[in-house]
Amino acid sequence: MVIKEETMNSEIIYNGKIVNLRIDTVELPQQKYSKREIVEHPGGVAVIAITDDGEVIMVRQYRKAVEDAVLEIPAGKLDPGEDPRECAARELKEETGYEADTLEHLVDFYSSPGFTNEKIHIYLARGLRDGLAQPDENEYIDIELYSMQSLLDMASKNMIKDAKSLVALLYASNFKG
Amino acid sequence: MVIKEETMNSEIIYNGKIVNLRIDTVELPQQKYSKREIVEHPGGVAVIAITDDGEVIMVRQYRKAVEDAVLEIPAGKLDPGEDPRECAARELKEETGYEADTLEHLVDFYSSPGFTNEKIHIYLARGLRDGLAQPDENEYIDIELYSMQSLLDMASKNMIKDAKSLVALLYASNFKG
Repeated sequence: MVIKEETMNSEIIYNGKIVNLRIDTVELPQQKYSKREIVEHPGGVAVIAITDDGEVIMVRQYRKAVEDAVLEIPAGKLDPGEDPRECAARELKEETGYEADTLEHLVDFYSSPGFTNEKIHIYLARGLRDGLAQPDENEYIDIELYSMQSLLDMASKNMIKDAKSLVALLYASNFKG
Repeated sequence: MVIKEETMNSEIIYNGKIVNLRIDTVELPQQKYSKREIVEHPGGVAVIAITDDGEVIMVRQYRKAVEDAVLEIPAGKLDPGEDPRECAARELKEETGYEADTLEHLVDFYSSPGFTNEKIHIYLARGLRDGLAQPDENEYIDIELYSMQSLLDMASKNMIKDAKSLVALLYASNFKG
């Protein structure tokens, strides 16, 4: 049986720029207790943007956490109170320069519900118009275009290493193909 | 251009049971510096286990981080030095009681490379034999079986909320269907 864990105590370890860390003490059946390490994250959006020619806009950037240059769909974190769709339009424009006629919500999901509340909202962008990228200061992003079929081939060879990008590509291919 | 970020300083904020938190100061072009909040995680495995009758073994458990009972494929974190395949067999047995004749590596990916190094290895388990589950103390897990088509229908309606489960289901459906 699934049992809701009531919070008996909550200790804030760190409040950061992107994430916070807290330790909750939770009550379990038979008056037992356990600790839960929880990484708070504001949540984010990611955009699978497909041009009229059927190409998908990908970005490559250095990710310090994994010490690698990772190929991903454009994405970013939500500002406080920001609507996910507006965030999707903003991040697509900032990172790639593209603006979209339509942004369709595809799916949202938890990145890793065992330890973080990060939720990612995926949008499908169509009707793209190219423009000038406006990356944040300290953001160094390469833009790379691939056909959907190339990306699916890369995914099948485990060359796409980012969860949100895998979900978005496979989801669009399965349900919007 | 993608630029590797060299670590100038690394400050450990917290060493936990599941995650550690550290803040790296990195060097950027033009002698600029930035901070990176990084959640260290040992990595994990997840198993899409399909019975001879075509049913997929799912687990439901309360996830404190997201305050919800989440439907997921069986999964767990790697012990230090543990082989991912052995971890997959161990977690499948512990959480569901099932043992598999074959465990095929499908794909691995980063959960959220913007802030954590967590890498998840997905295995496809076939030739299942039922047995007695041996959950960890303080683990309360329900086992639920669904046909692959039901799960894909649920995914298409955004009823699967866990990234690794979405990747595994869509990946198996696309490339192992």
